[in-house]
Amino acid sequence: MTQLLKVQNFTVSADGYGAGENQSFEHPFGDADPSEMFVWAGATASWPNRTDAGGSRGLDDYMTRDFHHNIGAEIMGRNKFSPHRGPWEDHSWRGWWGDEPPFHTPVFVMTHHPRPDFTLGDTSFHFVDDEPAAVLGRARGAAQGKDVRLGGGATTIREFLDADLVDTLHVAVHPGLTFGHGTRLWESPDELRDRFHLDVVPSPSGVVHHLFWRK
Amino acid sequence: MTQLLKVQNFTVSADGYGAGENQSFEHPFGDADPSEMFVWAGATASWPNRTDAGGSRGLDDYMTRDFHHNIGAEIMGRNKFSPHRGPWEDHSWRGWWGDEPPFHTPVFVMTHHPRPDFTLGDTSFHFVDDEPAAVLGRARGAAQGKDVRLGGGATTIREFLDADLVDTLHVAVHPGLTFGHGTRLWESPDELRDRFHLDVVPSPSGVVHHLFWRK
Repeated sequence: MTQLLKVQNFTVSADGYGAGENQSFEHPFGDADPSEMFVWAGATASWPNRTDAGGSRGLDDYMTRDFHHNIGAEIMGRNKFSPHRGPWEDHSWRGWWGDEPPFHTPVFVMTHHPRPDFTLGDTSFHFVDDEPAAVLGRARGAAQGKDVRLGGGATTIREFLDADLVDTLHVAVHPGLTFGHGTRLWESPDELRDRFHLDVVPSPSGVVHHLFWRK
Repeated sequence: MTQLLKVQNFTVSADGYGAGENQSFEHPFGDADPSEMFVWAGATASWPNRTDAGGSRGLDDYMTRDFHHNIGAEIMGRNKFSPHRGPWEDHSWRGWWGDEPPFHTPVFVMTHHPRPDFTLGDTSFHFVDDEPAAVLGRARGAAQGKDVRLGGGATTIREFLDADLVDTLHVAVHPGLTFGHGTRLWESPDELRDRFHLDVVPSPSGVVHHLFWRK
C-alpha cells in the first residue's frame, strides 16, 4: 500500500511566502502575523486549538479536519520546531506546542545539530541530520503503513519538492497578504503544474485552496 | 461531546432529485443513471469501490475521503437498503453491497416492516419502525460517542430536515442532469438558508458542492 508524503494546510501570502524574516520566540512566523495568516483555519470547528464548541463546518473545515486523516508521522524543518539557530545550548526547548503537541505521531525534525529524542503526550520528537529521501524512509517506517505529513516550513517543503518526493500538497493562498521577503514556497503555483495536477478552489472565507497531486 | 447528524456525498440532479422513479433490483436509482450521477466521486482516489491505485486527489477527494471521518453509525431509508416494498417475503435480501458493505458501523434501516438484525463483515443492520428522533437516539447510542451519518435517500433526509435534526449536509449538485421526477431533496438549496450556513463550492470536475452547517 502506498504511503503518501503530504503537505497539509500550509498557508502562504499572495507572493508565496510561508513566513517572514526575523523569526524569534515571540514571533514564530517572523515579521508575518500568524493570526492574520491562519484566520481561515482558526474559524473552523476542527481547528486543533479551538477551545469552544463553535466554528464553521464548510469548505475550510474539510481542510482542517483532514489534518490527521491516515497520517502516521510528520517531517518538519528545524525552524518549525524552534527559533534557535546553530548547536543546541541546552535541551530545555521542547517545541512551541506545550505539553500536548497537536501531532500525536512520531515527528522527525531535520537539523544539522542532533539532540536526544523525547516524548510529549503522544508525540515523539526525533532529530535527524540526513538527506530528504533518507528522512522520508525513516518517517515511513515509523508511520506503520500510514501516510507522512510534510509539515514545513517553506524551505523544507522546497527541499522535498526538489527531490521529487512530495505526492500531494494543500497550500492555502491568502490573497490579502504580501510579505515581500521571508521564506518562500514559490513565485507562482504554476511552477508545479508540470509535475502535479492542480485544483484551484476559492473559499468563501477569502483564501484560495490549491490542491496538488502528482501526475 | 456533541454527536452530529451528517449527510455526506449525497448527489442530486440540477432540479434537486436524488433518484428517479421505478427503482428495481437492476436500477437502484430508478430512471436515474448512477454512473452519471457519481462520476465525480468515482474518479477520486478515496472512492470506496475503487480497485486500482489511481484516482484524483483534489477537491472531490476531500469529500469522498471524509466519508468515514468520526462516523459511528448510519441511518438510511428502506429504499436505500432494498428495492422491495411492503412486508418482507423472505430475509434473503441483505443489501446491494455484497459481503463487505462499505459502512463498517451499525446501520439503522427505517422501515414499517421490521425483520431480524444481521451482520455482514463489520457492518450490522438493524431494522427500526420509529420516528426520526427515536431512530437518531438509537443510532447515537450505537455510535459510541462518534457522529451519525444520514445516508438517504432524499425522502429520509427530508424527514430528518423537517424534524430539524440535521447538523451538516454535503450535497453535490450535478448541473448537467435534470430528472423532472423521482425522489426530491429540494426545489432549490436556498430553501435551507434560513436554518443553515451554506458554502457553495464549484468543483473543477463539474459538480457543485453545497456544504451546509446549522446556524
